[in-house]
Amino acid sequence: MRLEDIVIVLVGTTDPGNIGAAARAMRTMGLADLRLVTPRHFPHDKATARASGADVILEQAGVFDTLDDALAGTVRAYGTSARLRSLRWPVADPAGTAAQFVERPDGERVAVVFGREKTGLTNDELARCHALVHIDTNPAFSSLNLAMAVQVLAYEARRALVEPAATAPEEPEVRPATLDEMRYFYEHLERVMLSSGFLDPKNPRHLMRRLNRLFNRALPDHNEINILRGLLSAVEDHIDQTE
Amino acid sequence: MRLEDIVIVLVGTTDPGNIGAAARAMRTMGLADLRLVTPRHFPHDKATARASGADVILEQAGVFDTLDDALAGTVRAYGTSARLRSLRWPVADPAGTAAQFVERPDGERVAVVFGREKTGLTNDELARCHALVHIDTNPAFSSLNLAMAVQVLAYEARRALVEPAATAPEEPEVRPATLDEMRYFYEHLERVMLSSGFLDPKNPRHLMRRLNRLFNRALPDHNEINILRGLLSAVEDHIDQTE
Repeated sequence: MRLEDIVIVLVGTTDPGNIGAAARAMRTMGLADLRLVTPRHFPHDKATARASGADVILEQAGVFDTLDDALAGTVRAYGTSARLRSLRWPVADPAGTAAQFVERPDGERVAVVFGREKTGLTNDELARCHALVHIDTNPAFSSLNLAMAVQVLAYEARRALVEPAATAPEEPEVRPATLDEMRYFYEHLERVMLSSGFLDPKNPRHLMRRLNRLFNRALPDHNEINILRGLLSAVEDHIDQTE
Repeated sequence: MRLEDIVIVLVGTTDPGNIGAAARAMRTMGLADLRLVTPRHFPHDKATARASGADVILEQAGVFDTLDDALAGTVRAYGTSARLRSLRWPVADPAGTAAQFVERPDGERVAVVFGREKTGLTNDELARCHALVHIDTNPAFSSLNLAMAVQVLAYEARRALVEPAATAPEEPEVRPATLDEMRYFYEHLERVMLSSGFLDPKNPRHLMRRLNRLFNRALPDHNEINILRGLLSAVEDHIDQTE
């Protein structure tokens, strides 16, 4: 299935700010279908403000009197639950739920249902759902914000359904330093370490090996080695004058 | 490492509501250490309202003048970036970053740095970071809210750390250099680059940023930084004599 096949249903939302923030969370992840069941205030300035440019989702959001109405056209409903309820439903975490999305064909609509800020979903509402989604939280403070829960769910859906845009950034047009360049750099570094009196001429190997490892780990590019060699030359001028 | 070893750093936050929402997001996932760099308004009623019971995190949050100060005591900094920059930092998604957390020993502090709402982190701030975290978003609407990004990161951290892999992380042979040590090293390096005449005092930033990135990539340990600083002191003695 595709991200646009996912329906986010918010039931009985009290704070219109949460509706706006949920719309924004959905849109950043590529979801689009928001459905509201008996929101206390909607439309509302606070919803629009928090949507912060995702207004299109609010404008297209359906508003319904019952959860059954809101679920029209979907083939599965996942109810979100802050508590781990008695085992009448299969429970998965958001990643596990998103993994189930992957298996469904394009065009099949699946709903994720979020309850009221304080009290969640009623047992009657949960009875409409096929499975539960549970987000693990700190037992000492489990008060996950409604829109944050939508964000986490949408984030996992995107991870499961969309190949991320190339995670590797474009490499700049700089070529890595060649092994010769690295060798000349190390020779130059050793000269400066000796002439500055930092390196004991009788036992130079240990420190040089350490610095070899350090700079090799950094995988310097051609320009960076030039910068370092420029610096070595500059300090060398001063050292020569004191000899 | 443990969830409490993760430091969330918010740089230049404009909206105090986002600070409160970030604190709530952190606490629901079990994180606790919030540090603020030059927030526009803090403390603020809006922050307290949005924290919604996570006030303890706001009360204990440090407020700092610079990112360097905020990073004190941490050994790694991950910068969050909405764009995939064409520069040479390692980039991972939140899950990949959290997987790196698992490998670190308890008690080692790691920072995740979040930039300004509109403009993110500056290049100078990114130069303090060892790697980037990128949250994949809808290319047509990539405006992920700051606190939502904190939520996603904290969610992945909890997923990775609360059910830790059975194998205990190996203790590192040598402890990594702290960010404080790195900062003193960079300051020392800049002094030598200036006094040797290598660095143009009118335009020092570009080269320093290059070298910041180079040495951060190498992840130097405590001993290696001592070696480099010893070398800088040795050449500094010669430069002083020629002045």
